[in-house]
Amino acid sequence: MVNYFSSDFKLGILGGGQLGKMMLYETRKYDIQTLVLDPSEEAPSKISCNYFEQGELMDYNTVLNFGRKANVVTFEIEGVNIEALKQLESEGIKTFPSAATLEKIQNKAVQKKFYLEKSIPTANFEVFEDLQKLKDAVKNNKISLPFVWKSATGGYDGKGVSVIKIIEDLNELSDGECIAERLVPFKNELAVIVARNPSGEMKTYPVVEMEFHPTANQVEYVICPARIDEKVAEKARKLAEKVSEAFGHVGLLAVEMFQTEDDQILINEVAPRPHNSGHYSIEASYTNQFEQHIRAILDLPLGNTESKVGGIMVNLVGAKDHEGEVVYENIEQIMKMDGVTPHIYGKKITRPFRKMGHVTIVDKDISKAREVAEKVKNSIKVISKK
Amino acid sequence: MVNYFSSDFKLGILGGGQLGKMMLYETRKYDIQTLVLDPSEEAPSKISCNYFEQGELMDYNTVLNFGRKANVVTFEIEGVNIEALKQLESEGIKTFPSAATLEKIQNKAVQKKFYLEKSIPTANFEVFEDLQKLKDAVKNNKISLPFVWKSATGGYDGKGVSVIKIIEDLNELSDGECIAERLVPFKNELAVIVARNPSGEMKTYPVVEMEFHPTANQVEYVICPARIDEKVAEKARKLAEKVSEAFGHVGLLAVEMFQTEDDQILINEVAPRPHNSGHYSIEASYTNQFEQHIRAILDLPLGNTESKVGGIMVNLVGAKDHEGEVVYENIEQIMKMDGVTPHIYGKKITRPFRKMGHVTIVDKDISKAREVAEKVKNSIKVISKK
Repeated sequence: MVNYFSSDFKLGILGGGQLGKMMLYETRKYDIQTLVLDPSEEAPSKISCNYFEQGELMDYNTVLNFGRKANVVTFEIEGVNIEALKQLESEGIKTFPSAATLEKIQNKAVQKKFYLEKSIPTANFEVFEDLQKLKDAVKNNKISLPFVWKSATGGYDGKGVSVIKIIEDLNELSDGECIAERLVPFKNELAVIVARNPSGEMKTYPVVEMEFHPTANQVEYVICPARIDEKVAEKARKLAEKVSEAFGHVGLLAVEMFQTEDDQILINEVAPRPHNSGHYSIEASYTNQFEQHIRAILDLPLGNTESKVGGIMVNLVGAKDHEGEVVYENIEQIMKMDGVTPHIYGKKITRPFRKMGHVTIVDKDISKAREVAEKVKNSIKVISKK
Repeated sequence: MVNYFSSDFKLGILGGGQLGKMMLYETRKYDIQTLVLDPSEEAPSKISCNYFEQGELMDYNTVLNFGRKANVVTFEIEGVNIEALKQLESEGIKTFPSAATLEKIQNKAVQKKFYLEKSIPTANFEVFEDLQKLKDAVKNNKISLPFVWKSATGGYDGKGVSVIKIIEDLNELSDGECIAERLVPFKNELAVIVARNPSGEMKTYPVVEMEFHPTANQVEYVICPARIDEKVAEKARKLAEKVSEAFGHVGLLAVEMFQTEDDQILINEVAPRPHNSGHYSIEASYTNQFEQHIRAILDLPLGNTESKVGGIMVNLVGAKDHEGEVVYENIEQIMKMDGVTPHIYGKKITRPFRKMGHVTIVDKDISKAREVAEKVKNSIKVISKK
């Protein structure tokens, strides 16, 4: 057993955004020394670590030299240099999730092929080397509309994913390797977070449900527990465990899934890190996802993943037509509501649809929490200073 | 309404110990800029604030110049220079709790006299200018043994309080103004945390109970909710509110009380800040005490003080006969237990009875939490490196 607490042990974190920031609260609780690498001088994590370095996460030498200062390295964003992680591993510095795991996930085309290999159910797809090859396939009727276009790399926060309904939609896409995926008619979009440590201990969080806006194609609420049949939930958790084991994953793996009309579960995609769909856990779970990630990568015993209370998460995204210094309008209104906790990520500038924070709403009665969540959604506005 | 979140607003905190450190997690959640003043270069808070200054908290100029950099000033320890707070207030910098409130609390002799004035029930006492005057009173049988000696100033973590059973015990005491207090036979030692904001909104947390070791005179567990009659609990909360109002207090006020054999409630003493008896709230309450303190002093709406689950807190104090670099023995054992969360304060050196951290145990069933708490207490040891 390594003596992590109040010792010289150092954890390196690649990426210093809001996920890293929330992870850092937990490292402080355990008094673990932390190093953070991020390209932005204004990274939200900067304030809460022991050592901050500004640098590019995809640059081999930057990541290698940074990682050498740590005893264990993890990341809060998938876009990091894998070759540098491999070199660190060969030098005896533990990186969790491992370079081999990340390599199967970072590129979505590789990820999807991996599911086929491992007989993990996923929507049918085809891979294209570049946009022109996809356009040709559509032209020659080898791919029929509508379908989902996904960029193989670089997707984040809804970027890099698009539903192609008409031919003209193809002109809006960026070039590069991509996937055309069958548009699956689904009842629910679900997610399960799996935690796994190097000793092989594994725990899953309850299934959460993404509730979409009735007209706009946008997730409005992440709801835990999902309001679905217990058998379907059990099937989703088992499948998530299978995915985690297939990847040989260590740390947190957020598994996004579709529940089809006939109650099949299909894997959509995974994220090998704390995830937006697990933010509810800070207020609702016995062990929140960030603490769990730290426990997992340090090979500590995993904590209880059950919920104390029902939880709903609402993203705080920048209002459209607002760009500039941020103001959280009516935040005092939502703070009056019982069980409501705002989390502000610390980005000074708001832009349309930029993730600026989130709000968690908890209640023993999930339907009551859902009512409050709607009031929260209708009250708070993320706008720019006049 | 001030725009606190992601703005230029600055909160100054006097004192950078574990209470300040835990308070800082909440300021980060709200993205509020923070300044911390503490005499120690190794203060636990140092890492989590925007600006750290090393300096004496009782020095007029140090506190004044530090405070002038902030928009609102608060403290996590009572031993701060009150004259500097008064000057800051006269310059328009808000200090919460106010200098006037702190002045009534900082000196225990003044605090006890205030209770008499306001007809707040408290144990009988007498004030002595110095130790010699107390010794004379005992010699002349004006004070009868046993009694409780309390230093008027500087008491902290059990220091400055002593039960005097025999004349020889007087020789162990430090000199200075002091109180001799009647030794009250009590059934329970209770505490209630009251939150109050400048607008006068007030909320109380549930009554907690200090469970003592059956033979050693030492608190072993802080239990929420206290296992007492609901009517007694209601009386305790009402009295705590009365005390908060009497002090015109803003922020958190931890009110420590005795429940006598005949179910009277007597005020023992108060602390105008987050308190050890409220640490359970991080895991158990809808709004933890640190978030509540921030809400209160910024005149934001107060959060729900109810509990999601039952909570028990165990202090992690340095084992006797151990001084040096700290090791938390068997911490991985307690992390295997459901609902157990260790908090490590970040002090590198352990000393006998030094507060090094705490552990919270939560469960929907408080008696089950109590069982786990005993296992925690019997497992973990705070020792020095061999």
